[in-house]
Amino acid sequence: MKLARAGKITKEMEKVAEKESLDSEFIRKGIAKGRIIIPKSNKRNLESPIGIGKGLLIKINANIGSSKKVFNVEDEIEKAETAVKFGADTIMDLSTGITEADVREIRNKILNKINVPIGTVPIYQSGLRALEKKGAIIHMDEDDLFKVVEEQAKEGVDFFTIHAGLTKEIADFLVEHPRIMGIVSRGGTFLAAWMLHNKKENPFFDNFDYLIEMAKEYDFTLSLGDGCRPGCIFDSTDYIQIKELMEISNLVKKAWKSDIQVMVEGPGHVPANQIEQNMKIQKSLCDNAPFYVLGPLVTDIAPGYDEIVSAIGGTIAGLSGADYLCYVTPSEHLGLPNKEEVKRGVIASRIAAHAVNIAKYGERASKWDYKMDLARKKLDWKKMIECAIDPELAEKIHFRDGKSDNTQECSMCGDFCAIKLLDDCMKDRMK
Amino acid sequence: MKLARAGKITKEMEKVAEKESLDSEFIRKGIAKGRIIIPKSNKRNLESPIGIGKGLLIKINANIGSSKKVFNVEDEIEKAETAVKFGADTIMDLSTGITEADVREIRNKILNKINVPIGTVPIYQSGLRALEKKGAIIHMDEDDLFKVVEEQAKEGVDFFTIHAGLTKEIADFLVEHPRIMGIVSRGGTFLAAWMLHNKKENPFFDNFDYLIEMAKEYDFTLSLGDGCRPGCIFDSTDYIQIKELMEISNLVKKAWKSDIQVMVEGPGHVPANQIEQNMKIQKSLCDNAPFYVLGPLVTDIAPGYDEIVSAIGGTIAGLSGADYLCYVTPSEHLGLPNKEEVKRGVIASRIAAHAVNIAKYGERASKWDYKMDLARKKLDWKKMIECAIDPELAEKIHFRDGKSDNTQECSMCGDFCAIKLLDDCMKDRMK
Repeated sequence: MKLARAGKITKEMEKVAEKESLDSEFIRKGIAKGRIIIPKSNKRNLESPIGIGKGLLIKINANIGSSKKVFNVEDEIEKAETAVKFGADTIMDLSTGITEADVREIRNKILNKINVPIGTVPIYQSGLRALEKKGAIIHMDEDDLFKVVEEQAKEGVDFFTIHAGLTKEIADFLVEHPRIMGIVSRGGTFLAAWMLHNKKENPFFDNFDYLIEMAKEYDFTLSLGDGCRPGCIFDSTDYIQIKELMEISNLVKKAWKSDIQVMVEGPGHVPANQIEQNMKIQKSLCDNAPFYVLGPLVTDIAPGYDEIVSAIGGTIAGLSGADYLCYVTPSEHLGLPNKEEVKRGVIASRIAAHAVNIAKYGERASKWDYKMDLARKKLDWKKMIECAIDPELAEKIHFRDGKSDNTQECSMCGDFCAIKLLDDCMKDRMK
Repeated sequence: MKLARAGKITKEMEKVAEKESLDSEFIRKGIAKGRIIIPKSNKRNLESPIGIGKGLLIKINANIGSSKKVFNVEDEIEKAETAVKFGADTIMDLSTGITEADVREIRNKILNKINVPIGTVPIYQSGLRALEKKGAIIHMDEDDLFKVVEEQAKEGVDFFTIHAGLTKEIADFLVEHPRIMGIVSRGGTFLAAWMLHNKKENPFFDNFDYLIEMAKEYDFTLSLGDGCRPGCIFDSTDYIQIKELMEISNLVKKAWKSDIQVMVEGPGHVPANQIEQNMKIQKSLCDNAPFYVLGPLVTDIAPGYDEIVSAIGGTIAGLSGADYLCYVTPSEHLGLPNKEEVKRGVIASRIAAHAVNIAKYGERASKWDYKMDLARKKLDWKKMIECAIDPELAEKIHFRDGKSDNTQECSMCGDFCAIKLLDDCMKDRMK
């Protein structure tokens, strides 16, 4: 951001501009104004940096990570690889178990093997440390919160979710005025529990400048987490959600003053008719800082299908300003996703992002659709399958009812194929 | 409609009012004005009639039906049963093969076994008859078009898709000004091919009064098909799509003059940013006649996942006025769906409909979510699974990583469960 403000176009800006078919000056200006970020640690060598923000194609993130109940390093690496294969632009490693050494191992393997921007929520590791050394998360050491950020920054993590806007005032308010689901953000809960138990202010809020100093040193991007994101549709757009957003708004300005790249995280569970206002208030309060949303989930009743619920919310969010969508897998609210569910989550998010990109940018995004449509018109199955978001699945479905020639009608209509019929009729007239 | 206009509240109106938690006078008025329909043939005894239209919960339809390539009566019945089990409000039987006798057999079994409103596209059977007797669909007999409607009406079909607005002028225009995908509606293609070959006007347009007479006799509902619905995102909202909608607008008024219940069918493949205008122009041109949409599909590149693409479009459509969503299955654009895909299609559509219902009607729809949220707050897995849209799948995912107690945290966060942590912390403060 400092370089962008000084008028310098870096090679990362150039690469992003090329990928987006935009002018590199557009990228530079966007970064200088805080509307665009390129999350990339100065410790990492990313082949293909990505840009997130105003005027750019919507990006998607996939979360992976073990828990204490399901722990297998190779599985998590494989999930990350699957996610990238199917189009995830970034990966967040949310591992929480079993030991601190374990989560460090997973993170380092991912940083080595996965060549996309990697994000984490460092407080998970601080919590784990407190649990190991002192028996409870509420005994987290204030210094350790920052130490872990620095440790991970040294390893090359590109962006960090930090719930710096969740103040003690908000936590106290929540106790006096409970909402249905309380706090469902894990990092937010750690901090709220810590503040309530120790009767102290959120260290990330109190010492935000320290975070900024570290961000300067390692060039990581700050993602300001929404600890109070609604955990059910009834908690949406309530007082404390907006209260936290207002704190975040101030932190965004602070970060920008020091030339630090920053994005803002958003809800959560939000009824479909409240999404637009949620996007717009973030954009206006946070002066167009990139907006990273989890979902939003437009209903609470579909565990097992929350990738669909999230694709619906993500599309509406993208249409009204969200820049970056965090995927949700079918196993959300039920358990840790397996590889197949990671794939489904990524594809659902990618569909949402692509639908928004078509709506916002037309031809810049819809060339892919055009190729598919020409193949469809010709009933050229080979090309159609090539153009599909998941060629393997498309091929499997198409050919399961008996092998057909490449340009034959499919089993849906058989002889009654509309495309074939009209085509024949048109040819008939040409004679 | 005649009774409603005469001020009479029928038992069907009462049942619909009860299901929707509305006043029966509201339903009567809606029907009298043409804004609400209750599709139900006077030949059928529907246990639970359903209402579609303004002020009512969004309804969803599932298509089933054999093709010449995949023909198995029992499979199709099972698909219809699956669809109803997972929440389809209506079923359309779109069977096209192998013989006329076959499609009659499927239809009659469905009419007997499936106790929800059943719709068909009668021209498929007319096409099949022409193919059997005269060797080509373009040789369909004009009288046969109406005869088939009457035959099916006598059997008790509750609503018919008829492409009466697709005039010869439109078909000729299409030949002179081709769009990328032409006509992708099967019924529309039959008629266009017939008109182009025989150089005659669409018989359903020309003799619309005859349809109206039959509708009076059998009390079926007319669903005015959109033969020119866009078959790819680039054909969306083009001249002939709107031209056909304007013809349909006149036919709606004609039907209403004779007290005939009517709805209007809509697109199709539509970029996300064009959906709202599509819904609003239908509502304004067709004086708030119920709008039945197929999709809309917001991108063309995701065969294998078109249930997601359609759930996105369906939600945006519902938010801007659509009343009735036709499901799309994962196998759309690839082949005939199997039972599992029918289930996925229904669930995706139901999620879309429910998301809209929450947004439009609040508490009338969101009680379901509230139950789920209370169970989530208590970590009561038994209740959560009960409340899930697909309890079987939710149970399978939740318990696969080892059996856990009913109120234990899940494998996603394990010990790090936000709900549990904050709950413990709150209890701590109460001491």
